[in-house]
Amino acid sequence: MSLKEDGPSVAIVGVTGAVGQEFLSVLTDRDFPYRSLKLLASKRSAGKTLTYENRDYTVEELTESSFDDVDIALFSAGGSISKKFGPIAVDKGTIVVDNSSAFRMDDGIPLVIPEVNPEAMAGIKLNSGKGALIANPNCSTIICLMAATPLHRRAKVTRMVVSTYQAASGAGAAAMEELELQTREVLEGKKPTCQIFNQQYAFNLFSHNAPVLSNGYNEEEMKLVKETRKIWNDKNVKVTATCIRVPVMRAHAESVNLQFETPLDEAAAREILSKAPGVVVIDDRAANKFPTPLEVSNKDDVAVGRIRQDVSQDGNYGLDIFVCGDQIRKGAALNAIQIAELLL
Amino acid sequence: MSLKEDGPSVAIVGVTGAVGQEFLSVLTDRDFPYRSLKLLASKRSAGKTLTYENRDYTVEELTESSFDDVDIALFSAGGSISKKFGPIAVDKGTIVVDNSSAFRMDDGIPLVIPEVNPEAMAGIKLNSGKGALIANPNCSTIICLMAATPLHRRAKVTRMVVSTYQAASGAGAAAMEELELQTREVLEGKKPTCQIFNQQYAFNLFSHNAPVLSNGYNEEEMKLVKETRKIWNDKNVKVTATCIRVPVMRAHAESVNLQFETPLDEAAAREILSKAPGVVVIDDRAANKFPTPLEVSNKDDVAVGRIRQDVSQDGNYGLDIFVCGDQIRKGAALNAIQIAELLL
Repeated sequence: MSLKEDGPSVAIVGVTGAVGQEFLSVLTDRDFPYRSLKLLASKRSAGKTLTYENRDYTVEELTESSFDDVDIALFSAGGSISKKFGPIAVDKGTIVVDNSSAFRMDDGIPLVIPEVNPEAMAGIKLNSGKGALIANPNCSTIICLMAATPLHRRAKVTRMVVSTYQAASGAGAAAMEELELQTREVLEGKKPTCQIFNQQYAFNLFSHNAPVLSNGYNEEEMKLVKETRKIWNDKNVKVTATCIRVPVMRAHAESVNLQFETPLDEAAAREILSKAPGVVVIDDRAANKFPTPLEVSNKDDVAVGRIRQDVSQDGNYGLDIFVCGDQIRKGAALNAIQIAELLL
Repeated sequence: MSLKEDGPSVAIVGVTGAVGQEFLSVLTDRDFPYRSLKLLASKRSAGKTLTYENRDYTVEELTESSFDDVDIALFSAGGSISKKFGPIAVDKGTIVVDNSSAFRMDDGIPLVIPEVNPEAMAGIKLNSGKGALIANPNCSTIICLMAATPLHRRAKVTRMVVSTYQAASGAGAAAMEELELQTREVLEGKKPTCQIFNQQYAFNLFSHNAPVLSNGYNEEEMKLVKETRKIWNDKNVKVTATCIRVPVMRAHAESVNLQFETPLDEAAAREILSKAPGVVVIDDRAANKFPTPLEVSNKDDVAVGRIRQDVSQDGNYGLDIFVCGDQIRKGAALNAIQIAELLL
């Protein structure tokens, strides 16, 4: 991030969280230009000093007047904060990039992965005097669609069966700490501390902790179903998902089975994915080297491998792929800042 | 296990391995009757004394004459040992229950899950003077089909998309030890020891380490595809699988998407599964309580939950389920001993 007089004024809401901290790292990495920076958090964190790029910032309490003269606000403080303060910021003329699920499915709110559907936010301009909300998709959706979209563009995906392997980070920094603590406890033969989740996470896995809806899907799974339709602007695409939390720190993996309207062979798919922006292909069959969460941790690109023609579908109408992406980075902070970059 | 003069004489091949040890536990738990017991292993382990049910046994080296007067031999010492010594035992009139993949797909060799297809071994009799080979399916196949078969019987499965979450135990006791060692090392900030697998396993996951075939599937995945067809005696059932190793000790999980020939609603599916032998339903949506690997560890039953109508399929032609089973127990030792029980 670099101070530039003609850059936007930026605010980060929820700066002390895992994604909030990652916003700062990504802004630096991408040399995002800014005129001023405001770090906002809850009353509990207000008053803390954060040093960022050799300057000291005092964390300010988020209030209704926080957004005076803020051009871009990056929100990652949970859905209820977004619901309350997002519209207040918009009223002040701020463009809000919101990492929560509060507005994602609202009509008129763009839900954007910059490599996938930048056109969805075409009407939104900086310095127009008009505020706006742009929603960041759910981490699992972003990581899945980074790989599926280039294939969808070529052969039209008609159905997608997704099983996820989700990291602790999706539940926040405290969940990552609990996974580490529990693992130490289990190795010492102690009873694991279960505060964030209601069961042992160390050396275990479990169905995603999001509430389960009346159709038996949990909210995390229905995000994949619904957000895919909105992002692809395709009401007919069929998606099912099973979301599982695995004892991994900060990157998600997803096993994705694809059905296409027109045939697509695996060589063409590999070629398409190798040229896709933000995607790296790791698919060395002889060496048994494929994407892993560890490999993509702290990296920007989503990795895809295990690209193969689905033996359960006739002709070349199906593919299986395996995708890994950093949950905090491309799954949250990086994607939000790429959205902000589209505004510049 | 109990000494009975009219029981069979039993040999265990590979008694010092993870599954070999589990054979002993399961024989005890099920009070399996036997006339005599022979514990066989490689030269390296021969001469060791094992105390079992208050008797001392000397582990004997596996040789061509090991099977004189052995009625039932339980093999779990890897494919090459089975290939060499399985036929030798059969020639001596022994009935071999083989836990390796050596003979599973051979014509004329029954591949059996006792709850699923006991009829496949109908021609094989103890004390007939005729030896025989019976193959134990792969752990992932057993665990998947324990849940899928009761539904298949009702509504005929036409296609199955499986993603696995496989424990360390499938790669043997040394892999379990490596996972624990690596986890300690990572927590201490040390470089993890990678001897069994060529990459970090602690707080990570990776595509199953089985060799990858020319169609891009690894051998573990193709076992699910091919063994399902043989066990169900249905050449047309379509299966695809993505097999992933996760940092869990001894129980596998599987996300299974099912397509049916005739409609099956989730209430009927839950009813069918709740009555299926060897299956327990854990499916409490309100409490977010579903099967976990930890919950089924050291247990006989396969647990199934997340039973729901697939939103990506029209009508009631699809279901998603999530299955967990102990890899060493129902995935290997228990299933083999249940096969032996069918012989009694």
